[in-house]
Amino acid sequence: MPDAPVRPDTPATDRRTPVGGAPTAAHSAAEADEPRIDIAAVTGMLLGTWADTRREAREMITDSAFWGIDGLPLPEHRERVVEQLHLLVEQGASGRAYPTEYGGQASNGANLAGFEELVLADPSLQIKSGVQWGLFGSAIHQLGTKPHHDAWLSDVMSLKLPGAFAMTETGHGSDVAAIGTTATYDPQTEQFVIHTPFRGAWKDYLGNAALHGKAATVFAQLITGGVNYGVHCFFVPLRDDDGVFLPGIGGEDDGVKGGLNGIDNGRLHFDQVHIPRTNLLNRYGDVAVDGTYSSPITSRGRRFFTMLGALVQGRVSLDGAATIGAALAEYIAVTYGNQRRQFDSGSGTDEVVLLDYGKHQRRLLPRVAQTYAQYFAHDELLQKFDGVFGGTTDTPEQREDLETLAAALKPLSTWNALDTVQDCREACGGAGFLAENRLVGLHHDLDVYATFEGDNNILLQLVGKRLLSDYATQFRTADAATLAKYVVGQTAGKVFHGAGLRQLGQAVADLGSTARSVERGLRGDQQHELLADRVEQMVADIAERLRPAAKADQEQAAALFNANQAELIEAARAHGELLQWEAFTDALQKIHDEGTRQVLTWLRDLFGLWVIEKHLAWYLINGRLSAQRAAAVGRYIDRLCGRLRPHAQDLVDAFGFAPEHVRAPIASGAEQQRQDEARDHYAALAASGRAPTPEKALPQT
Amino acid sequence: MPDAPVRPDTPATDRRTPVGGAPTAAHSAAEADEPRIDIAAVTGMLLGTWADTRREAREMITDSAFWGIDGLPLPEHRERVVEQLHLLVEQGASGRAYPTEYGGQASNGANLAGFEELVLADPSLQIKSGVQWGLFGSAIHQLGTKPHHDAWLSDVMSLKLPGAFAMTETGHGSDVAAIGTTATYDPQTEQFVIHTPFRGAWKDYLGNAALHGKAATVFAQLITGGVNYGVHCFFVPLRDDDGVFLPGIGGEDDGVKGGLNGIDNGRLHFDQVHIPRTNLLNRYGDVAVDGTYSSPITSRGRRFFTMLGALVQGRVSLDGAATIGAALAEYIAVTYGNQRRQFDSGSGTDEVVLLDYGKHQRRLLPRVAQTYAQYFAHDELLQKFDGVFGGTTDTPEQREDLETLAAALKPLSTWNALDTVQDCREACGGAGFLAENRLVGLHHDLDVYATFEGDNNILLQLVGKRLLSDYATQFRTADAATLAKYVVGQTAGKVFHGAGLRQLGQAVADLGSTARSVERGLRGDQQHELLADRVEQMVADIAERLRPAAKADQEQAAALFNANQAELIEAARAHGELLQWEAFTDALQKIHDEGTRQVLTWLRDLFGLWVIEKHLAWYLINGRLSAQRAAAVGRYIDRLCGRLRPHAQDLVDAFGFAPEHVRAPIASGAEQQRQDEARDHYAALAASGRAPTPEKALPQT
Repeated sequence: MPDAPVRPDTPATDRRTPVGGAPTAAHSAAEADEPRIDIAAVTGMLLGTWADTRREAREMITDSAFWGIDGLPLPEHRERVVEQLHLLVEQGASGRAYPTEYGGQASNGANLAGFEELVLADPSLQIKSGVQWGLFGSAIHQLGTKPHHDAWLSDVMSLKLPGAFAMTETGHGSDVAAIGTTATYDPQTEQFVIHTPFRGAWKDYLGNAALHGKAATVFAQLITGGVNYGVHCFFVPLRDDDGVFLPGIGGEDDGVKGGLNGIDNGRLHFDQVHIPRTNLLNRYGDVAVDGTYSSPITSRGRRFFTMLGALVQGRVSLDGAATIGAALAEYIAVTYGNQRRQFDSGSGTDEVVLLDYGKHQRRLLPRVAQTYAQYFAHDELLQKFDGVFGGTTDTPEQREDLETLAAALKPLSTWNALDTVQDCREACGGAGFLAENRLVGLHHDLDVYATFEGDNNILLQLVGKRLLSDYATQFRTADAATLAKYVVGQTAGKVFHGAGLRQLGQAVADLGSTARSVERGLRGDQQHELLADRVEQMVADIAERLRPAAKADQEQAAALFNANQAELIEAARAHGELLQWEAFTDALQKIHDEGTRQVLTWLRDLFGLWVIEKHLAWYLINGRLSAQRAAAVGRYIDRLCGRLRPHAQDLVDAFGFAPEHVRAPIASGAEQQRQDEARDHYAALAASGRAPTPEKALPQT
Repeated sequence: MPDAPVRPDTPATDRRTPVGGAPTAAHSAAEADEPRIDIAAVTGMLLGTWADTRREAREMITDSAFWGIDGLPLPEHRERVVEQLHLLVEQGASGRAYPTEYGGQASNGANLAGFEELVLADPSLQIKSGVQWGLFGSAIHQLGTKPHHDAWLSDVMSLKLPGAFAMTETGHGSDVAAIGTTATYDPQTEQFVIHTPFRGAWKDYLGNAALHGKAATVFAQLITGGVNYGVHCFFVPLRDDDGVFLPGIGGEDDGVKGGLNGIDNGRLHFDQVHIPRTNLLNRYGDVAVDGTYSSPITSRGRRFFTMLGALVQGRVSLDGAATIGAALAEYIAVTYGNQRRQFDSGSGTDEVVLLDYGKHQRRLLPRVAQTYAQYFAHDELLQKFDGVFGGTTDTPEQREDLETLAAALKPLSTWNALDTVQDCREACGGAGFLAENRLVGLHHDLDVYATFEGDNNILLQLVGKRLLSDYATQFRTADAATLAKYVVGQTAGKVFHGAGLRQLGQAVADLGSTARSVERGLRGDQQHELLADRVEQMVADIAERLRPAAKADQEQAAALFNANQAELIEAARAHGELLQWEAFTDALQKIHDEGTRQVLTWLRDLFGLWVIEKHLAWYLINGRLSAQRAAAVGRYIDRLCGRLRPHAQDLVDAFGFAPEHVRAPIASGAEQQRQDEARDHYAALAASGRAPTPEKALPQT
């Protein structure tokens, strides 16, 4: 069992006060005599719409029974996580999404909010919960109908029925439509026959498959009457009560993984396994006793995407969990960077606090800004998800928007989590490499978030295609007048390309390069214009380049698309960044406290400019920024980092983590204690008169 | 024990031949009817000056006794690596660097070359070997004198005397000069008293400290006669033959780490531990019986850096090992990407091979180019190291150059290894997350390479300072005429900034944007000019901004330096990139085979342009590239990727890994077999007439 977390001996506010010696810079907002954020209020903003559920979940996981243990051998880790799942059931935390008649709370938003916080306890717990209740249970709930709910939902919630979500195959991941597993209806026996006809069709990477799953929701090509109606989902019992595979079913353990080793991922294969006809989860497609297929959705494509879309919640929850994981890493690295000193500045006896180094600020503070943006964007995503799945805004358009939004945000936040955790790890040096300080474990566990529930590049490609189709729609529905206007608009756009510089206030700035005038041209409105313009221009450019595809054969069209694939993905990324920026900006509007608004506006600016800096070459090539203005972006970021530096601790304290969530000794105040002890030692030595003379102070011989 | 590696059933050349169906693009150079590299010859080039030793080491580690085992619990992993070290001793692989009179081979270059290859077996083995023979043993060898060599070197080589290298403390890592451990000479007893006076002075993160070390080379402030002569190194026995700490010594286990868990890292503390005066490793500083200090190096600073410089080999070897690790990841991801198919292109029955996707090529091929550049740069570094440490070129200038070169290359290659492994991991999807496929383990183990043996940012900062001082030296030694020329030169430089575009052949290119004319302006010479100019300009710009520091007080000077820290680090990075590019280009000169030279020239171009693309905004802001030319960089990279795509397998095959080095099932040909099986299944089904009709082929109702 782990020890209790190291609790700092001093309260949080004292921890921020530099101890002994003059600080090398203002280390807290209090010292700097500057506006200060209302930490508790900001915590409330970050926790968002379902703050109460999040607080409840966080309170629950202060219990060490929920924590991961470093170095626990794989079999024990797996068992521990199963026990933790049972604890979740006991605490009533397993069924918030399910209908009230089965004991749930019918709150989709609260459900995901609660699960996302589990990443603080152990990402294996978060993901194993997601497998059981977010994937396996959700498939029954979302793709099944009342008889299925009656039969299984209560047992799913109570964990009496642990299950696997058997969609991915060894041979097919992102391309679900091409899976090889078949479910062939036999009207004689009124059964479906589940079969994996070759090794590549084995279901793979499934949580709960190696050990604990008693059943699985299996995706397979539905074949009846000699016709393949495409991918549908089936409830398939896997193991008997002794955990032995049922006849015709077998599997393998996926073994050790890069992380998430508390989950028993594995493979499954099916050799002509018979299941009742009624085990087809038949909300979107059914087979009658005589084998007749029917569906409320006639379009095969729309039916497929509707079924897959029912499972968007995995992506939504990864966006949230990755954001929380990044925040935890930042809390640890900023707190340590605020205490750890290294290298004498040459100006006194004290060494320099890490966070006073320009490079260290540049490394950590934009990441904090990015994470704030993600928190606000995620809350909007969660609201949309709750509206669609709760039924209040369940229209095909809203569903499509939800899927696009999730596909845009999940890649950005999961990649950012990895980059952030890695940077934080390195910023903590050797201490960051120790498992006890959490950072390496976070990287190991979150690594796969970038490719599961949809490979990030594939998701962004989907977003890109949506952007292209929206762009095309403008013209499909347009009459001649609109089209004419578009042509003019294009020309205007091109003129604007060149003249855009002025529009962005650069004429003002270029008169003199004072900091103030430069900033004037890079404030909120201009940031928005730069970010939004980039998306529009990129999409328009790609559409233009793809235009010949309409008249080409399929092969040529594919080649043309392939040649533009990387850029389409970039356009989708730009779209996601714009959404995050807008969410951050919307959040600013709701702040009444002046100090908070001021500091968070700086943070939003830092986020916006950091994004612009990443794409600076694009802005220059496309004439959206002059060389002088572009050069100013980096300097403005430096200034914002300096301005935000005294608020760094406030900003990460506002994530609202308790010591039981952090559990990293380096962020516990231990480093500060060591610094104090060393300083006291040298002071006492100097006072005693026994301190050795430095060689350099000797008279030269 | 691990299974034997999965050996592909087909020889390597057959694996490259696409099986069944028309390929979606040329997959091998043979198909593409293009120049082809001589794989064996390229392997020889990559293995470099000490190819024989590398082949010997690779042959040795085909024995599975040297391999890491996934999921091995920490205590067993540690014991396994100790056993492997004993095997190295048996095989005579432990002492290549040591003097022949103690049984060594006195070959510094061969020694590092051999150790670097161990990363293919298990990075824990590589690093534990490095601790024992590269750090602990080297400290005795490089910092000690004959009596020390006589006393301990044979036992170090035979592992009779396992030891720790006790430099880093909990409180001080990169800032070695500020360590807190003291070694105070007592003339009464003729002993040094080793003492860690506070918690922050405990030695930390030391391999061999938690369990196996019987002694340590301890770095401490040498105090004699009331004077602190700075950091020196002492031989301190730690444990008795039963493994029990000697009186006054204690320690802690660092526990689970993010990787390298085959090494027993730990902490040590010393409470007034007495050691003989002669245990001071006294090559660069000695204390006589009466306590008189003497040193062949009067400058305290130079003495300090000379002692630390004796240990540069750690950095050199990490540069090599990180490069090999990146190459292994690329071999795995490219081989898999050449077999794995996903998504129907719409043009036929076969799915598209991953490496035919534009994005996939963009992701993997520049990384291969980067790794080639690193191989060539590393061999130059190793030659320089061998020259200096072998005595043939051991001058202070050469030592300084060696240290600067190591400090420039190690950060680039270790960071690149992490980024590469991560990209390769994601490029392999869920399969990449399984430990058996090696990629996650490589990331875990190589993670700490970025911060140990010198934090990467600190190392680059050292390089930056060297660049600045070289820049200043030009003027310190200059007479009035030179200075005048410099002033003119500066002006000329500024003019050139604007006019430089023409110099780079852009006038030609800008006349028409044909691919050929664009490429003409981005070929070898222009790449060199762009890369070299950037270093010079950045250094000059920083020097100009730092100029006021000369007249400022220490605090202001420190603030000014801090404001330019990030950019100085960038300048050092640019310098390292230039060195890598030059090494690659030098290697091209030695190729006689035309096909090989053609393909590797494309690869060198890809490397150069990829680096230029990363810094495109800088080139635009500084007027070195026009917007049009800058836009062409990305398109040229795309074209190079397309040209290199058929050579991708050749290029990674040339790394020369045997199946026993790769050991990743996804790169074994298993994926190709699965594809073939699936294809055969569908073909047989179609032939049987029992294949289901796709729903979309049904008549519309």
